[in-house]
Amino acid sequence: MNITSFALFGAKPTFDKPLPIGQLYFPSSERYEAKFRGIFERQYYNNNGPLHEELEEKLQQFLGVKHAICVSNATLGLMMLADAMELTGKVILPAFTFAASAHSVTWAGLEPVFCDINLDTHQIDINAIDALIDKDVSAIMGVNLWGGACNPKALAEVAAARGVKLYFDSAHAFGCTVDGTSIGNFGCAEVFSFHATKILSATEGGCICTNDDDLAVRLRSIRPSYSLDHPVSIVRVANARMSEAQAAIALMSLEDFPENQKNNETLYHLYAGKLNAISGLRLIRPAGVSFSNYQYLVCQVDEREFGLSRDMLIDILKAENVIARRYFYPGLHRCLPYAQELPQYLDSLPNTDSLCSSCIQLPIGALVSAQSVEHICDIIARTHQYAAEIRSRHEK
Amino acid sequence: MNITSFALFGAKPTFDKPLPIGQLYFPSSERYEAKFRGIFERQYYNNNGPLHEELEEKLQQFLGVKHAICVSNATLGLMMLADAMELTGKVILPAFTFAASAHSVTWAGLEPVFCDINLDTHQIDINAIDALIDKDVSAIMGVNLWGGACNPKALAEVAAARGVKLYFDSAHAFGCTVDGTSIGNFGCAEVFSFHATKILSATEGGCICTNDDDLAVRLRSIRPSYSLDHPVSIVRVANARMSEAQAAIALMSLEDFPENQKNNETLYHLYAGKLNAISGLRLIRPAGVSFSNYQYLVCQVDEREFGLSRDMLIDILKAENVIARRYFYPGLHRCLPYAQELPQYLDSLPNTDSLCSSCIQLPIGALVSAQSVEHICDIIARTHQYAAEIRSRHEK
Repeated sequence: MNITSFALFGAKPTFDKPLPIGQLYFPSSERYEAKFRGIFERQYYNNNGPLHEELEEKLQQFLGVKHAICVSNATLGLMMLADAMELTGKVILPAFTFAASAHSVTWAGLEPVFCDINLDTHQIDINAIDALIDKDVSAIMGVNLWGGACNPKALAEVAAARGVKLYFDSAHAFGCTVDGTSIGNFGCAEVFSFHATKILSATEGGCICTNDDDLAVRLRSIRPSYSLDHPVSIVRVANARMSEAQAAIALMSLEDFPENQKNNETLYHLYAGKLNAISGLRLIRPAGVSFSNYQYLVCQVDEREFGLSRDMLIDILKAENVIARRYFYPGLHRCLPYAQELPQYLDSLPNTDSLCSSCIQLPIGALVSAQSVEHICDIIARTHQYAAEIRSRHEK
Repeated sequence: MNITSFALFGAKPTFDKPLPIGQLYFPSSERYEAKFRGIFERQYYNNNGPLHEELEEKLQQFLGVKHAICVSNATLGLMMLADAMELTGKVILPAFTFAASAHSVTWAGLEPVFCDINLDTHQIDINAIDALIDKDVSAIMGVNLWGGACNPKALAEVAAARGVKLYFDSAHAFGCTVDGTSIGNFGCAEVFSFHATKILSATEGGCICTNDDDLAVRLRSIRPSYSLDHPVSIVRVANARMSEAQAAIALMSLEDFPENQKNNETLYHLYAGKLNAISGLRLIRPAGVSFSNYQYLVCQVDEREFGLSRDMLIDILKAENVIARRYFYPGLHRCLPYAQELPQYLDSLPNTDSLCSSCIQLPIGALVSAQSVEHICDIIARTHQYAAEIRSRHEK
């Protein structure tokens, strides 16, 4: 056992095929074909089809929410929601999130205000919000990160106290609960992603959840792109129809949610047992939830203690066919167009910058076995063990 | 034979099931299942999958265009395009079009300027454009209507003379040619719809075509929602990925385009022979094209000559299970939010108003047989014959 046992230095990779990030659940081919045959027989492919209706009803039951409004993807869901809520001016959200959170705001004609995050939970720093609210801010977008929650109750108090609206990007949080209440029931509305990498997969898709009847009617009028003469006043329509093909996969994924969640939770604890023994690594526990989907496996790498940088660990893992990711990087405040148009955030988000340079995402989900987790943790432990040698060799 | 032979007055409907508007082509179940089995086996559902790649290549060949960039729907395609072209201020387009044409403009943060149309061709009135161009106008969006074309060459001259950009909503015009050149090759770019009602169907979907390499790179960076750190400067991303399921249907639809076009053309001529014999009806011939997909069958009803209003004819047809539509109605300038925010157009588009109150769309496409056309034309002829009686009875 020495440094040449690493694939980066010539050894055979630990995994034969790349092991990706993401839940990537798929039903069996039998179930899949049966559902898709039904779609073909009905020749009803899109826009409030029977599977789509069934999915919305089952989601409402599952989440205990009045309205689950399925859309073609979560980005469009967030855009529609900003319009339906009649937001104006600016929206506060973290920069430590997927690009779509902020871009949905700009597509809706609004300006993002980036708030820093809590180093421990990775969620939006509630104490930093108050100072960011001025007369132009009309809403806060909470982002429920890593199968955790951004303290929606405390956010609701801040929003109410300052008279701004509150909604959530809950792309990471399907199936999670806060004190027994499902994510999807907080704020004016919440948006889930049903992308293939999420625990509830429609291969692509999303859903807006709300308990507000008026908002629901407005959203349903915006969605099909031809509800212009609807009695409800809406700003503009958007084609965000969910297809029957998406609904079919989502229905099977919803049925298998308990099993997939359980698998994630088991893998999380396996990772925890192994990784916590490695100096310089900190596994992120889903924050602020009474139940988590454990959809993401995220670690922070302390370069000094671990002996290698986050990016070098990713190189080591990639060579072994473990497709670990730096996520999120470099933070939305450092991406175009924001870095250029809103330069005031470049030096105002130290916690975001710190996490963007130290977080690593590791594989968890339907394609990952307990044995794979053991292999991945072994690679990381060995990397730590040979850190000095790897660093000197890699720097040559 | 008398007035009680109409379903509206108690007779059995001519058609057992509703005969809808729209092309509504579907491949055979054998071809469908074979393609979908492949998708399942690869478990590759979205974002530049192999079927998607094959579709883009085949579209490029078919249209003779450098870049065919498939998107999840045409509305998103138009929005992305406005961003990628870096449009500012205002965009001129007709109000006699589908809502998405104008809403794509407002989602991109721009203001629509509504131009009237030519009463004969139904296309944008080229002579009216010049007077609408001011310093805030950055582009003209031509809309190629009813399987015809809005004279893209003349539009290009106007745009060049006044220094504004030109692009097209070509949702109706896939497969059509102008002097032998395929629609898809004009202006900066053109956007097709692949909705199920279109001759090229992905059940839902669309495609942006351009011969501009730089524009194509920008569009491809905007599409997947994570090309933020791409070297190309883009305003913002949008999730507009086309799925393999969409691409699969579109590939089969493209293969069957010649057959489906031929069927439409035959039906069009059948309609023409019958309807032209009825006083007060004018069948719209696809304007300005050397080859048409005959995707839509549109008539104008002259209430005085025909003896009944367009809306009453629609009621008669609906009772017979012919789902004819008033299309477009009431014109975008009369829809929210434009009627409220841009009231200057309410009384400035007389031709648009005239067509919005007189146009009717009749069934044509894969689900329509020659016999159905004969039945539909018979109903319309009888309606004309009994017009006075129907009117007096209906008004009671």
